[in-house]
Amino acid sequence: MALIVQKYGGTSIGTVERIQNVAHKIKKWREQGNELVIVVSAMSGETNRLIGLAQQITNHPNPRELDMILTTGEQVTIGLLAIALESIGVPAISFTGQQVGILTDQSFNKARIQSIDNKKIRAELDAGKVVVIAGFQGVDEQGNLTTLGRGGSDTTGVALAAALKADECQIYTDVDGVYTTDPRVVPKARRLDRISFDEMLEMASLGSKVLQIRSVEFASKYKVRLRVLSTFEENPQGTLICSEEELMENPVISGIAFSRDEAKLTVLGVPDRPGIAYAILKPISDANIEVDMIIQNQSVAGTTDFTFTVSRNDCDKALAILKTHATEMGAKEVLSDKGIVKVSLVGIGMRSHAGVAARMFEVLFNEGVNIEMISTTEIKISVVIREGELERAVQSLHAAFDLE
Amino acid sequence: MALIVQKYGGTSIGTVERIQNVAHKIKKWREQGNELVIVVSAMSGETNRLIGLAQQITNHPNPRELDMILTTGEQVTIGLLAIALESIGVPAISFTGQQVGILTDQSFNKARIQSIDNKKIRAELDAGKVVVIAGFQGVDEQGNLTTLGRGGSDTTGVALAAALKADECQIYTDVDGVYTTDPRVVPKARRLDRISFDEMLEMASLGSKVLQIRSVEFASKYKVRLRVLSTFEENPQGTLICSEEELMENPVISGIAFSRDEAKLTVLGVPDRPGIAYAILKPISDANIEVDMIIQNQSVAGTTDFTFTVSRNDCDKALAILKTHATEMGAKEVLSDKGIVKVSLVGIGMRSHAGVAARMFEVLFNEGVNIEMISTTEIKISVVIREGELERAVQSLHAAFDLE
Repeated sequence: MALIVQKYGGTSIGTVERIQNVAHKIKKWREQGNELVIVVSAMSGETNRLIGLAQQITNHPNPRELDMILTTGEQVTIGLLAIALESIGVPAISFTGQQVGILTDQSFNKARIQSIDNKKIRAELDAGKVVVIAGFQGVDEQGNLTTLGRGGSDTTGVALAAALKADECQIYTDVDGVYTTDPRVVPKARRLDRISFDEMLEMASLGSKVLQIRSVEFASKYKVRLRVLSTFEENPQGTLICSEEELMENPVISGIAFSRDEAKLTVLGVPDRPGIAYAILKPISDANIEVDMIIQNQSVAGTTDFTFTVSRNDCDKALAILKTHATEMGAKEVLSDKGIVKVSLVGIGMRSHAGVAARMFEVLFNEGVNIEMISTTEIKISVVIREGELERAVQSLHAAFDLE
Repeated sequence: MALIVQKYGGTSIGTVERIQNVAHKIKKWREQGNELVIVVSAMSGETNRLIGLAQQITNHPNPRELDMILTTGEQVTIGLLAIALESIGVPAISFTGQQVGILTDQSFNKARIQSIDNKKIRAELDAGKVVVIAGFQGVDEQGNLTTLGRGGSDTTGVALAAALKADECQIYTDVDGVYTTDPRVVPKARRLDRISFDEMLEMASLGSKVLQIRSVEFASKYKVRLRVLSTFEENPQGTLICSEEELMENPVISGIAFSRDEAKLTVLGVPDRPGIAYAILKPISDANIEVDMIIQNQSVAGTTDFTFTVSRNDCDKALAILKTHATEMGAKEVLSDKGIVKVSLVGIGMRSHAGVAARMFEVLFNEGVNIEMISTTEIKISVVIREGELERAVQSLHAAFDLE
């Protein structure tokens, strides 16, 4: 008998009929002798509808009151799912985040889980019930309702799995797992059976939006075996995200991630003196703009060029900031470029295999793809290239690293 | 400075725009120096929408889970109203029934309030805030969410007014008060400035559906001054429902109530022996059918006729029950009649004025209206007449008792 936490997202329970389908799936798992804790999101579209109501009043609704409204979305689905389960003979009981003591900090709209009291859930499981819990929400120490922010239901699922020491946390969604790369770019991309937490974090942060990063971090920290799988398939296998020790064999490369949401800013001819990087990046960070890759070229005649990337939305704002500071920095010119993308090889096998970077550069050279920036970590090599060369680069790398 | 509890029903807050209008009304009351606790229902139609979702799954949803779903209706409106208040500069905070400790029994879908913890509300009022509270809902001792049943928001308002010792509980609705009778039947009907709890209870139980009976009982028990008034008027006066002591002068008759939802059943020629009333009514009551008026005629030759009224919906069921028991009761015949209505004069002045009944019968006799049954209480005289004579009867009585 295993204890399994299953999380169903908005599209999986987008209609009453789909909720009934999910109930039948749960019934099967239960008949196989498992204990089940189910976490659900709001029905798809519901959270946006509720935000829309609040925004009819003001564009900046009071965050506490917005959470009061938003938490109702999941509260409706837990009730409906429990009713659907009971109606097919599965004893079930639903709880809000507050009712099972999902304690968070007081950051309304983006709260973080601090602790979960598993006693109530454990008691209902012992009584033979399927326990249905509202994702995305909790309660702070003063008893105010809070939400965890977009995608927070994944985090609820993982946090519950950790608190209950569950055997597995299954995240049901509309894709059937994590792929070696985006199948829309490489039709031969294939589903991974397993991937390590670290690799998944790199893939997720690079735009493979299967799982919320926070939930993967949480799973990694508490060693929760996490499985992504499709709600709309019979007996899906999905992809297991687990500790490295659980991976039988580490392929050199697990996947290729890429991101189109990139822009590059270059400050030309600044004096090469201590503190110049700080002088350039301080006003950017003060404006809450996140900087990704940073390159500072070799100094030539006492001046240097400084380049960094930001997400494309922030490009114009960053450029304006740099221009107002250009004189005091002593810069010759400030340039921006929205025509770039980032492509990354991800794989824990990289650690023990030298020459991955060289092989990557060779493949791209053979394809005539020019590399504009490079950055590396232990398990990832990222390059910035022109947007028009994205497909060619990803396809050739996917073939060259035996991912098909 | 007065402490006022205001309750706004579903049509008063049926759209975001109406919620904003209500916020402006509240702001005015606050600027006059009042402390305000606001109770709101779900937006009109929302409770039915939620019940509809559950009934897509089953016609008999688990009552606990149904309450889990239904309580979200009010939770959305309290958040929206608090946002609307804040957006026009009125400090506000919203609470669910659970958050302010509205403790109920465990009768899901029709729970009764057992106690309210006023500390949290009092603290927020002291902090200068308008406190917005979800009506219709509470929490049982085990922490399960409960609802009070249809119209329960009125009860929440009155219960809060009692717990906070408020100066007045104002029920805002789409009518501007309690009328001497239904203006659709008597165009000259007029709004009453004041009416006693007892009179209001008689009016309400007879189909003047301005207030829920339970909320009037509650107000009467805890001596909460209750005012019914219109959301859609500027500076409405409404009708004050209060203790008799507060009424300066008691008119003989306050109003004329009537009900079309009536049917009559007659058991002819039963033996006139002890226990016959019990024998007839026991199976009716076992079937959960409520009996209103009861008449047993003078015995003739050892047998008697027994007549009683039920609501029209229950008539066929009651008839079938009587027929199956007719032989064992020794009854000659059982008849039913759905063509009747009940008309009642209500007034606490009746107690000190003899001859009200005689005058009523005289007026109806002059109009040629035949009286089929009569029942009286200290402050009410009810007669059963043919349905076709309802308008004529009510109009003539309204004129004769100086109600115009």
